[in-house]
Amino acid sequence: MQLARARVLQVRQVHCARTLQSRVQFYPRQLLLRSLSTPPPVEPVTPKPTPTVLPPPIRQSRWRSFLQTLGRVTLATILTTAGGLYYYTQKDRHPGNQLPFDSTKKTIVVLGSGWGATSLLKSLDTEDYNVIVISPKNYFLFTPLLPSVAVGTLNPRSIIQPTRYITRHKKRMVSVIEGTATEVDPTAKTVTFTDSSEIQGAISKTTIPYDYLVYAVGAENQTFGIPGVREYGCFMKELHDAETLQRRFMDCVETAAFPGQSEEEIDRLLHVIVVGGGPTGVELSGELHDFLEDDLKSWYPELAGKVRLTLVEAMPSVLPMFSKKLIDYTVSTFNEEKIEVLTKTMVKEVKEKTVVLQRPDKEIVEVPYGVLVWAAGNVGRQITRDLMAKFTEAQTNKRGLTVDDHLALNGSNGSIYAIGDCTSTPYAATAQVASQEGAYLARMFKLMAKRDAVAEQVYKLQQEVTLRGDGEGRKGELEKLEKALEKAANIRPFHYSHQGSLAYIGSDKAIADLTIFKENFATGGVATFLFWRSAYISTLFSLRNRILVATDWLKVKLFGRDVSRD
Amino acid sequence: MQLARARVLQVRQVHCARTLQSRVQFYPRQLLLRSLSTPPPVEPVTPKPTPTVLPPPIRQSRWRSFLQTLGRVTLATILTTAGGLYYYTQKDRHPGNQLPFDSTKKTIVVLGSGWGATSLLKSLDTEDYNVIVISPKNYFLFTPLLPSVAVGTLNPRSIIQPTRYITRHKKRMVSVIEGTATEVDPTAKTVTFTDSSEIQGAISKTTIPYDYLVYAVGAENQTFGIPGVREYGCFMKELHDAETLQRRFMDCVETAAFPGQSEEEIDRLLHVIVVGGGPTGVELSGELHDFLEDDLKSWYPELAGKVRLTLVEAMPSVLPMFSKKLIDYTVSTFNEEKIEVLTKTMVKEVKEKTVVLQRPDKEIVEVPYGVLVWAAGNVGRQITRDLMAKFTEAQTNKRGLTVDDHLALNGSNGSIYAIGDCTSTPYAATAQVASQEGAYLARMFKLMAKRDAVAEQVYKLQQEVTLRGDGEGRKGELEKLEKALEKAANIRPFHYSHQGSLAYIGSDKAIADLTIFKENFATGGVATFLFWRSAYISTLFSLRNRILVATDWLKVKLFGRDVSRD
Repeated sequence: MQLARARVLQVRQVHCARTLQSRVQFYPRQLLLRSLSTPPPVEPVTPKPTPTVLPPPIRQSRWRSFLQTLGRVTLATILTTAGGLYYYTQKDRHPGNQLPFDSTKKTIVVLGSGWGATSLLKSLDTEDYNVIVISPKNYFLFTPLLPSVAVGTLNPRSIIQPTRYITRHKKRMVSVIEGTATEVDPTAKTVTFTDSSEIQGAISKTTIPYDYLVYAVGAENQTFGIPGVREYGCFMKELHDAETLQRRFMDCVETAAFPGQSEEEIDRLLHVIVVGGGPTGVELSGELHDFLEDDLKSWYPELAGKVRLTLVEAMPSVLPMFSKKLIDYTVSTFNEEKIEVLTKTMVKEVKEKTVVLQRPDKEIVEVPYGVLVWAAGNVGRQITRDLMAKFTEAQTNKRGLTVDDHLALNGSNGSIYAIGDCTSTPYAATAQVASQEGAYLARMFKLMAKRDAVAEQVYKLQQEVTLRGDGEGRKGELEKLEKALEKAANIRPFHYSHQGSLAYIGSDKAIADLTIFKENFATGGVATFLFWRSAYISTLFSLRNRILVATDWLKVKLFGRDVSRD
Repeated sequence: MQLARARVLQVRQVHCARTLQSRVQFYPRQLLLRSLSTPPPVEPVTPKPTPTVLPPPIRQSRWRSFLQTLGRVTLATILTTAGGLYYYTQKDRHPGNQLPFDSTKKTIVVLGSGWGATSLLKSLDTEDYNVIVISPKNYFLFTPLLPSVAVGTLNPRSIIQPTRYITRHKKRMVSVIEGTATEVDPTAKTVTFTDSSEIQGAISKTTIPYDYLVYAVGAENQTFGIPGVREYGCFMKELHDAETLQRRFMDCVETAAFPGQSEEEIDRLLHVIVVGGGPTGVELSGELHDFLEDDLKSWYPELAGKVRLTLVEAMPSVLPMFSKKLIDYTVSTFNEEKIEVLTKTMVKEVKEKTVVLQRPDKEIVEVPYGVLVWAAGNVGRQITRDLMAKFTEAQTNKRGLTVDDHLALNGSNGSIYAIGDCTSTPYAATAQVASQEGAYLARMFKLMAKRDAVAEQVYKLQQEVTLRGDGEGRKGELEKLEKALEKAANIRPFHYSHQGSLAYIGSDKAIADLTIFKENFATGGVATFLFWRSAYISTLFSLRNRILVATDWLKVKLFGRDVSRD
């Protein structure tokens, strides 16, 4: 005990001594003077023993002071973070009053609450417009993380954000309506929508006018008219799809565990088929593999070994948007993970317990399955087809709505703007494109408001000049304004800048095709997985979601995924 | 800056000086000697400026070292907790191999996965028996926190624990089957059950034998045959009930927000009626009130003020199990919270949009509502009634199965044991009773195994003695054994010890009727609320659930509840 204490003491002294010495040189004059003028209280502190007690154990003292500092830093960090977080979140939770609607402003109606609409709402300046949002979902869904929800890595509510969490923080009130748009009338400039939810009020259908319509309704699941997909398949587009898949998969596992089940039936029930080799299909396969390895093996040891995953893709390769190298890396990883990848394989029909496939060699086979997930792409919604039908000349592209450089719907004279998956552009139908389009529209609406203001002035001035033609002075002013108007009217077209593509492929590995400073990087592996996570965390629209997702990841690391069938 | 730095320096020096001086006395000899033998490196450390720079600011130095210690402690705590937690959870997530079933052991079949069954499984020693669990849910649900899930305070998965998380940690394997028992045959000693879930295999119905049956199937919702309850009401018993309520309530709010909705219709949609003044109904009302105050007011300012909560109870008072004082406290709190409490009020019929009530003065009124929650108690399940029918003499109590002091079903000759809500005992049908009964059964099964072992020995010895009657010595031994058997056979009857009753009543207030050392305590308020939380946290069956629930509470404190309608 004493020895230890002595050791501590030594260390302290050395530490002090060094400090003193090292600090003496830059000792402030005025203080020195003051200290000299005051009689020094020498007795209490004559540190005679100091020189005698040192063989200085430097490493320890360093280590010790390092720990002290670390301790202090930790403490400080915790306190400040906690405090800051609490302050910030409380402020965020209690938005103040907003400006009311202004009848002199133009009205923007936004259809949808997905990537395009939400990114528009985030950056839109509501002072210039009255804004009305109409969507069947009253929240934004962070679709890229849907596969993680499907296996219980993430809690469903961690990747959604109520639309009102955004709109309530705007300067002017934004009215958010949970409804499904059923018709757009470009001539009357009106939108008709209904309350499509379970509970309906006395009023459940209405029509409202717009000055500008932002059409961001997205797309629906593409089944290519293959029979049985909707009846027996399970999609991966909405939140309830992910929850359904989780429930069904666990149901298959429990049914396979039912006493007396034949081996053949167990094999069927535990065969998961994912159709579609895009990012969704690939990430889902990877997540399912992790669920199998990390969790099912612990809780269903008798069954885990019998689960089989098959990824079916009609094209010659999975993940077409990635470089050859990364595609090969993915496929080889999947082979290690015992995920069977069937390319050039077409689904002909989905039956209750089997799926009919056409092999590359045109042979037809019937494969038994327990769960079939359909992630084979999107197709335009009915309302979009109806809208196209209303522009017989301008809208002829079967693949979707066509727009001009400013994202204005061709044929709509700049009163309708279309963004995201409902459009047919040179760009892929991705979240990245949609959110950049949304942000662009927000900027453009701002500029348009400016332009209209200037135009107003010009108009007024022209009137004056023409009415009481009092000459030259005003003319100059007018020309200036007209130049300003020209400038304001000239709004730069939309340009998409591709940030790259990311995908998780299971066993803590991800792949990334990145464009940094116009350079292309193709990486895969565990490091990329960490990058994948941080990239997604930072893409999440709110601190709330970031923290929720991060804690979910931590939870899974600690406690694993939940195997109960809710 | 310089000045500040100088100040810090001063402090340091003083600090050092005092330390040196104060510690000199108990300086260990050997060290001194060593230090004297070595030539002292004086130059680097002559602390000449020390005496000159002091007016000693003692408080600061104390404060400073306190901070240092605190920092170090924080750091240490964090590291050890994190490390320990990680180690513990990983061990928990990877249970090892278990003993296989042993055909020489008796087989216990457990029906149910609720409070009774789960507490039995937790304490049962599986070495003595083969155990088979059959339940329609493959998880345990912590029912008391269901109301918190219904308003989004807790994540549904935070209050459930897969049954396998318990059974996989047992010495001998336990087979957990997701199935619904449809028939018990006490004469053949068999149970028949079916796979009642969405996905069915080739085999979905089977019958298995038992030596002992633990009957813990619980009860179902009591509707008193009132028309419309099942069609239009929403229960609060299973997890999906809570999720349904949350979805419906948000649906009502969004429907009320639909443009053009009449004031009258808005009032209807935002009127929540809770039927049943027991703990469930009361806690749900409290939670709904919190949701309203903390969240809806921020995100639906135009509607939050119009939401109305009504609690309907047929009896003269709510919470009959609590003391008068606490009942009054609850009612007065509810008045402050603008929750209308209608006692002595009977529900006559539930229609799609209105409920028919009979007032205390026998007057019949029809009240419009948006959501109606039915929490009016339990009634035995069909299978329980069927089982009772098989014991025409022994089971005549309409209110439930009757059992003896050892929880053995009357008439079953000790082959069936019934616990929890399916039984009719002097005790209330609460989680507390069920879990104590489960734990008792576990202890009893252990003792029964011991008893049977001794009986076996006695039997063998008797054989020997009678066969080759070689007398006296053995006789003594036999008597000893017979005494032992008598002792082992005499198992103490079940005794319920009431720990008290707790209920949350909203706005961070709770009430508690506690029995501590046979003393009765009745408290209400915010302190009780903290007690309520810690009590529930500690009652949760696993560390996993404890941490999940705690983090959920923290999340809600930071980010509030989610208002999206999933």
